[in-house]
Amino acid sequence: MKILCFGEIMMRLTPPNQQRFLQTTQFDLQFGGSEANVAVSLAQFGENAAYVTRVPNSDLGRAALGELAKYGVDATPSVFGGARLGLYFLEMGAGLRGSKVIYDRANSGVATLEKGMIDWEKALNGVTWLHWSGITPAVSQSAADATLEALQMAQKMNITVSCDLNYRANLWQYGKQPSEIMPELLRNSNVMLGDGDTIALYFGIKGADYAEIFEKTAAEFPNLDYLAMTARKAFHASHNTYKGFLYSTHFENDKMIESKEYDMPEILDRIGGGDAFMAGLIYGLAKNTPPQYAVEFATAAATLKHYIRGDFNVLTVAEVESLMKGNTGGRVSR
Amino acid sequence: MKILCFGEIMMRLTPPNQQRFLQTTQFDLQFGGSEANVAVSLAQFGENAAYVTRVPNSDLGRAALGELAKYGVDATPSVFGGARLGLYFLEMGAGLRGSKVIYDRANSGVATLEKGMIDWEKALNGVTWLHWSGITPAVSQSAADATLEALQMAQKMNITVSCDLNYRANLWQYGKQPSEIMPELLRNSNVMLGDGDTIALYFGIKGADYAEIFEKTAAEFPNLDYLAMTARKAFHASHNTYKGFLYSTHFENDKMIESKEYDMPEILDRIGGGDAFMAGLIYGLAKNTPPQYAVEFATAAATLKHYIRGDFNVLTVAEVESLMKGNTGGRVSR
Amino acid sequence: MKILCFGEIMMRLTPPNQQRFLQTTQFDLQFGGSEANVAVSLAQFGENAAYVTRVPNSDLGRAALGELAKYGVDATPSVFGGARLGLYFLEMGAGLRGSKVIYDRANSGVATLEKGMIDWEKALNGVTWLHWSGITPAVSQSAADATLEALQMAQKMNITVSCDLNYRANLWQYGKQPSEIMPELLRNSNVMLGDGDTIALYFGIKGADYAEIFEKTAAEFPNLDYLAMTARKAFHASHNTYKGFLYSTHFENDKMIESKEYDMPEILDRIGGGDAFMAGLIYGLAKNTPPQYAVEFATAAATLKHYIRGDFNVLTVAEVESLMKGNTGGRVSR
Amino acid sequence: MKILCFGEIMMRLTPPNQQRFLQTTQFDLQFGGSEANVAVSLAQFGENAAYVTRVPNSDLGRAALGELAKYGVDATPSVFGGARLGLYFLEMGAGLRGSKVIYDRANSGVATLEKGMIDWEKALNGVTWLHWSGITPAVSQSAADATLEALQMAQKMNITVSCDLNYRANLWQYGKQPSEIMPELLRNSNVMLGDGDTIALYFGIKGADYAEIFEKTAAEFPNLDYLAMTARKAFHASHNTYKGFLYSTHFENDKMIESKEYDMPEILDRIGGGDAFMAGLIYGLAKNTPPQYAVEFATAAATLKHYIRGDFNVLTVAEVESLMKGNTGGRVSR
Amino acid sequence: MKILCFGEIMMRLTPPNQQRFLQTTQFDLQFGGSEANVAVSLAQFGENAAYVTRVPNSDLGRAALGELAKYGVDATPSVFGGARLGLYFLEMGAGLRGSKVIYDRANSGVATLEKGMIDWEKALNGVTWLHWSGITPAVSQSAADATLEALQMAQKMNITVSCDLNYRANLWQYGKQPSEIMPELLRNSNVMLGDGDTIALYFGIKGADYAEIFEKTAAEFPNLDYLAMTARKAFHASHNTYKGFLYSTHFENDKMIESKEYDMPEILDRIGGGDAFMAGLIYGLAKNTPPQYAVEFATAAATLKHYIRGDFNVLTVAEVESLMKGNTGGRVSR
Amino acid sequence: MKILCFGEIMMRLTPPNQQRFLQTTQFDLQFGGSEANVAVSLAQFGENAAYVTRVPNSDLGRAALGELAKYGVDATPSVFGGARLGLYFLEMGAGLRGSKVIYDRANSGVATLEKGMIDWEKALNGVTWLHWSGITPAVSQSAADATLEALQMAQKMNITVSCDLNYRANLWQYGKQPSEIMPELLRNSNVMLGDGDTIALYFGIKGADYAEIFEKTAAEFPNLDYLAMTARKAFHASHNTYKGFLYSTHFENDKMIESKEYDMPEILDRIGGGDAFMAGLIYGLAKNTPPQYAVEFATAAATLKHYIRGDFNVLTVAEVESLMKGNTGGRVSR
Repeated sequence: MKILCFGEIMMRLTPPNQQRFLQTTQFDLQFGGSEANVAVSLAQFGENAAYVTRVPNSDLGRAALGELAKYGVDATPSVFGGARLGLYFLEMGAGLRGSKVIYDRANSGVATLEKGMIDWEKALNGVTWLHWSGITPAVSQSAADATLEALQMAQKMNITVSCDLNYRANLWQYGKQPSEIMPELLRNSNVMLGDGDTIALYFGIKGADYAEIFEKTAAEFPNLDYLAMTARKAFHASHNTYKGFLYSTHFENDKMIESKEYDMPEILDRIGGGDAFMAGLIYGLAKNTPPQYAVEFATAAATLKHYIRGDFNVLTVAEVESLMKGNTGGRVSR
Repeated sequence: MKILCFGEIMMRLTPPNQQRFLQTTQFDLQFGGSEANVAVSLAQFGENAAYVTRVPNSDLGRAALGELAKYGVDATPSVFGGARLGLYFLEMGAGLRGSKVIYDRANSGVATLEKGMIDWEKALNGVTWLHWSGITPAVSQSAADATLEALQMAQKMNITVSCDLNYRANLWQYGKQPSEIMPELLRNSNVMLGDGDTIALYFGIKGADYAEIFEKTAAEFPNLDYLAMTARKAFHASHNTYKGFLYSTHFENDKMIESKEYDMPEILDRIGGGDAFMAGLIYGLAKNTPPQYAVEFATAAATLKHYIRGDFNVLTVAEVESLMKGNTGGRVSR
Repeated sequence: MKILCFGEIMMRLTPPNQQRFLQTTQFDLQFGGSEANVAVSLAQFGENAAYVTRVPNSDLGRAALGELAKYGVDATPSVFGGARLGLYFLEMGAGLRGSKVIYDRANSGVATLEKGMIDWEKALNGVTWLHWSGITPAVSQSAADATLEALQMAQKMNITVSCDLNYRANLWQYGKQPSEIMPELLRNSNVMLGDGDTIALYFGIKGADYAEIFEKTAAEFPNLDYLAMTARKAFHASHNTYKGFLYSTHFENDKMIESKEYDMPEILDRIGGGDAFMAGLIYGLAKNTPPQYAVEFATAAATLKHYIRGDFNVLTVAEVESLMKGNTGGRVSR
Repeated sequence: MKILCFGEIMMRLTPPNQQRFLQTTQFDLQFGGSEANVAVSLAQFGENAAYVTRVPNSDLGRAALGELAKYGVDATPSVFGGARLGLYFLEMGAGLRGSKVIYDRANSGVATLEKGMIDWEKALNGVTWLHWSGITPAVSQSAADATLEALQMAQKMNITVSCDLNYRANLWQYGKQPSEIMPELLRNSNVMLGDGDTIALYFGIKGADYAEIFEKTAAEFPNLDYLAMTARKAFHASHNTYKGFLYSTHFENDKMIESKEYDMPEILDRIGGGDAFMAGLIYGLAKNTPPQYAVEFATAAATLKHYIRGDFNVLTVAEVESLMKGNTGGRVSR
Repeated sequence: MKILCFGEIMMRLTPPNQQRFLQTTQFDLQFGGSEANVAVSLAQFGENAAYVTRVPNSDLGRAALGELAKYGVDATPSVFGGARLGLYFLEMGAGLRGSKVIYDRANSGVATLEKGMIDWEKALNGVTWLHWSGITPAVSQSAADATLEALQMAQKMNITVSCDLNYRANLWQYGKQPSEIMPELLRNSNVMLGDGDTIALYFGIKGADYAEIFEKTAAEFPNLDYLAMTARKAFHASHNTYKGFLYSTHFENDKMIESKEYDMPEILDRIGGGDAFMAGLIYGLAKNTPPQYAVEFATAAATLKHYIRGDFNVLTVAEVESLMKGNTGGRVSR
Repeated sequence: MKILCFGEIMMRLTPPNQQRFLQTTQFDLQFGGSEANVAVSLAQFGENAAYVTRVPNSDLGRAALGELAKYGVDATPSVFGGARLGLYFLEMGAGLRGSKVIYDRANSGVATLEKGMIDWEKALNGVTWLHWSGITPAVSQSAADATLEALQMAQKMNITVSCDLNYRANLWQYGKQPSEIMPELLRNSNVMLGDGDTIALYFGIKGADYAEIFEKTAAEFPNLDYLAMTARKAFHASHNTYKGFLYSTHFENDKMIESKEYDMPEILDRIGGGDAFMAGLIYGLAKNTPPQYAVEFATAAATLKHYIRGDFNVLTVAEVESLMKGNTGGRVSR
């Protein structure tokens, strides 16, 4: 089993100590990006995870790939190119003050990625699972084209493809609507993670509840073996709940499986929670665990992510399973 | 509309990471002071805010004024003088351990301020609102005299005057009681913020509840158009509630208006909460917003202050109004 | 009254900002150890507290002793020796993610301590109370022998001896079980702190509830004048409750006294909570306060420890007593 | 006397402790830019200095302007606009390892500045001196057009115009050579700072030595009242020398005046040295000091800049004059 | 041998990374003061060193004493009192930019010290050497009186007394000139450290060279057994030379002994260099080492101080002696 | 070409800002070790570099391997085991104060490494060059045995073997002298780096100068194709010179080649200088560059290492070659 994630890794710049942008004189430097986060999670779970992106051959681009290697991801499929490394500024909220993100990713290596720049046959050699997200086709037409190129090659090579719909309102600036681009891409995928609003926006599918939305989506996209969703309630910036859902027409009894719901007080860093869920789901499905285990594992992994700084979910399988067993007390292990 | 705030700005020295004074090897450096905090809030709301104080013409004094300029306050009305810059040491509490403040402000520029040192006619030129607090007359007789000088000039120039009663038990060391000084000063003011204990101490006015206290105070000081109060419940150092009250004999129906009460979990920095309320109230009243809006705005601004490091409430009108609309979930804005 | 604490002080290395071990590029350096923590607490309460250990005569060993001196502990009874200073790495948990400790204390000065290395008659001269814990006899046979040597001398000199049972599962690697070592040591002690599981493991004593366990232990060890226990409920890593129990056959009415139970939200650092309780109990018992005061004081001290960074409980008697009076609101003291 | 500087202010991100880009986990955040640096120097010298640029109306753009205000610069002539704030990454060298700069300024507010976006008549109202540099016309044709617009208005309003030629090899990417753009701009200026290589590149003027180059340039551009140059010898990254030259056909005797040469060991931060010279020169010329004083002041100011962190030369006139008097011993002032 | 040092310890606040006061957002916190520095040096040399001062009984005052204890000084002779802890702000220079000190020590515990507040008979019990400096009598008449009280008791108890003349131009504000106060104090001393300018100012003694100045001073103050001086050449803030001189009428041959002169490149922190010399001299004289050894030891200790951060000279005798043997190469010891 | 380095990687703990061990409250965390440093250098030069060691399967052990991966080294040949990760404390000197290292590496994974724990046939598969140092056989007999096992397999597989003699006086504690162990190991090597003192100690070979020592060593060990040496002069801790020598009986004319000598002022971090030379030499020899290039490259790489923090020489071939061309001026590259 070897999972390849495809997307954009960015430099993340965060004022320390929950200061506001206007106050800070320093930035903490980390790296992140939806698909890179999935790759790191899987590598930390002990799986063979690789990552393909396009970054400039500068100290900043190489630092991004080096950070992935540090956490066990094979980033050698990546190519060098583009004028700059994408970056994002993150102001961490607190209590009743929400977090703010300022994206500065235009003209990055991925934004200017074109078909043919990545040799997909080579990149997918030996790969059993390919993961992408709705962010990549949102940055430019050429990136959307390159995404389709990748998915078609994967389908041709019988590689399972998963997609996190991941809608970002401030992208999709290049003249196309998601509804013009995403359906064809999703038709080349086998597993989907997404919420109701995004499904409505991308595919025009609506329903009274999760079950109906899933049912209609599965009918529209018969290629999808699994559909997943997460639900978050936010009491305030540092106190949320989290729950996961998994749907498949292949399930014998209930088509819809729900995880336990976790209460998450005193959250440390909620960025990357959905990516942690996605990685947990891939872990469970790719290893053919029972569906209930898969969704519980994904939800527990996502829950614990909220207590780890940075985009990356630096967490072992044993730690996730400990939470699944109900060890929520946070005792000192010594 | 131009608001001038008058008072003392101090250097604030805080051990990082909620360490105790005995533990720390560093101090975080910020600047603050009740009236300066009001000025910064108003400047951040986009209003024309100025500040007048007296600091030594040293690197430390100039740094204090530079910090105000950074946050948009016009500090040019200030004058240079005095032996030292006032400072205060702040040990941030946590949970069941409260915060501690050690003041070190004796002999500062404001403590040795005298009548005539500030040219009030010039300082108040073009000003429509003057704000002061009970801290300034508490530091020395000459500072109290200078305060009266300012208020009398303001009244003569038809400038609205607001006062935060702001009782500090460890001041008033120069041989006078607040009850000998504050009544005359308040008679030269139009808006008052203060709690019941302070009103009793300063003016000898007591009542069964807020309404009665306000009614009696308004009767005693017919020059007061608006009287305001805030109520805080403290579960522990990092979990409080906050609510605001506004009273005016000019209100048509109920003389007393109450704001929504906010629950404030995981507080980051509660210093300056009252100043944030005062600034919000000035904003609402000076712009002639409906009274209910004014008190809601002031309370929401004060609530959000608890989630911003430092004395200064670095916050926009849009952010305050978002909380007023019920957006307490602290979602990531991206 | 002079209390001597005997045990191992270690260098504590903690990644800042609740980072994981894999993420950090810095360590915060503090010092700690169960018995050293007790000594610091007592010195901060204003008592005459001394400490005896064995550390190498290196900059690291001297830094450990210097830190004790800074907090008022007389560390001059300590001796120099051993190949290295023990150290422990602490990964601070958050919310649902628990803390992790990696001990690296093998071959330290205390691990290689032998009978005769410390001149106990000299070290105990003028001492009225000796405190030790179950950690020291757990590291090596020779350290256990040295412990017995100390206790026997103390009993001979009519010095009160207290013991915190303090079971650490990853110690006891030298071929002996606690049940072969601890009973004889406890027979030379007068005050014991321990929980039910540890009592069962060390002495084979079990009971339906705390009262029964205490009763049986007191019967087995008639030398024990006081037996104490604490109970913690952990909702998650940063939210626990805490309560203390004190038992004595000398009490006139109820043999078992319970403290108030404290709710501890937003915990800053829970390491050393039990040591803070132990110190509070020694303080109360050694000063002959009423038993109810003693257990309330110990519990309040332990509760406040959760809001102080590091192993050391940097806290005054007045601060503990303020919490005992119900001041849980964490107000700003200024 | 009021000096307006026009150009681009950028966020400067520097790994702390002279770490390499590949090593760092933090960035120190400062702001800088050639013309902004000149404005800050002049404000710190006590002069009336203003700054006009174009930055996005984001927290990052406002932070840049706030920083200028903190150091006394009136940034209110600036306009909001553009997709992003320009930024540059700075790896500080040491000894034999040189510093590295990675610019990331494409598509910034200034890069997309167009004629008409700034109301120059209003911006130049009351201004007596306008300063620009060769960086602005290098970023885009529209920025070059806007620069010409500014200069023509200034000449029309009889405002003295100074230019730092400031060649940056990695700019000029928009299809024009400097030689197509700079001559016309320089014809609308009165004071020029530049080195021989740049003069050759921009204007095709070459000479055997500084004197000849200056003579020919002055002949070609009779509008130039003053021409200045600096010479730096670099023994290694932290040890340079510095010297200034000033030329004018108006000088009675020698047309060329030279400053003292300073030895600069253990340099702290050499970025902005030339801007410090430019500011010192403007200070001297605008105040009509003797030419020798002007060039000595400029050189001493530039020398001291090497011992101040960040782009901004935070320095008083008294400090510059102290160095001019030969106080190079760096004694403790107390 | 037990040395008691008497004077004022202050909080030292330094912007990190050689930032200017106007730039910093943090202060590094250390403690220092001329006589406290001497005490720490002696304790680090392994001698029995004690310190007596007067600080407020606040967390800040106790932190100052705790820091002394950490470095081995017995601060228990000190008394609590006074309104505030003295503090000083230190801007570290670099290269050609000198350091700046802003004192903020008025109204401190020592400034308001009066005769009778310290029980000198008790404080001097067992003491063999008392050290004071010219700073203490410079702060107030009452502090000067208390100094005389101490010296007279010391002389009565046959304790050797040393004085560092230590002139600070910005003190002596209470209406007396040093020449009215210092002569009587020096008459009660046995060892003096001071430079020619200070000797001229305090005692009106001048001479063509060091030898003549010493000769005249020794004649004027026959009570002085030893007179010492240091000479520093400053190439720039981070590159000085250092040399020591010792004079005594008791020396058999030359009355004047000179040390080796050290070249000090890349200085880290020069504050406390003279105090390090004083401590080295006391060490040598009190232990009756040969005079040449004493002055060489003092000079080497002072030289190494320039490479240690903070006021305190954290250095062993072995390290000083290694430099005396010519080990200037700074090799890695491993 | 694939180089495998074999040895011990340790956690390096350094007090920030050149503080002394007794002063610090933090440690900067890096990783290093002689052979790991060589591997990182080679990976940064773009070569295929791998590393084999034995570390515990803990977060600390995995962090060490992750750090190697970040810098491009393939650490997958390493095995997990042993009780602890070796570590060393580094106090950075300054000027005339030298650096201090405290090793704490006993009982580490490498110290308890035994023959058979590493499958050398597998580890050396595809490898063309194996590098080891004299540190590994110095820690224990079993580690020495494992080293011989590795070398014999390498020789059998026709892999070039290089050795850095690297004498550490405080190792060799297991009862054997280097002269009993090193000769046999060196007989299984082809390239040697070492200084005269170490050659005398290990092999009893002495000579009047480098040439004679090399000649005799080459005669004694005919298996050695290349012998190298470095010479450092230390003016003080931050100012050294550096020069390299390379000897081979295969050279046609002079058997001894010398590099240029570099002056190294203001050194940032000299740890790892020799390893940087070793890596440069391997780079040159393995790529069959002319011998003069090889020794110049090695010396220039080692020189630049002194300006990079940490053990690892994060440097490109282009940067080394730029210094070789004489670019010592440390200009800003932009």
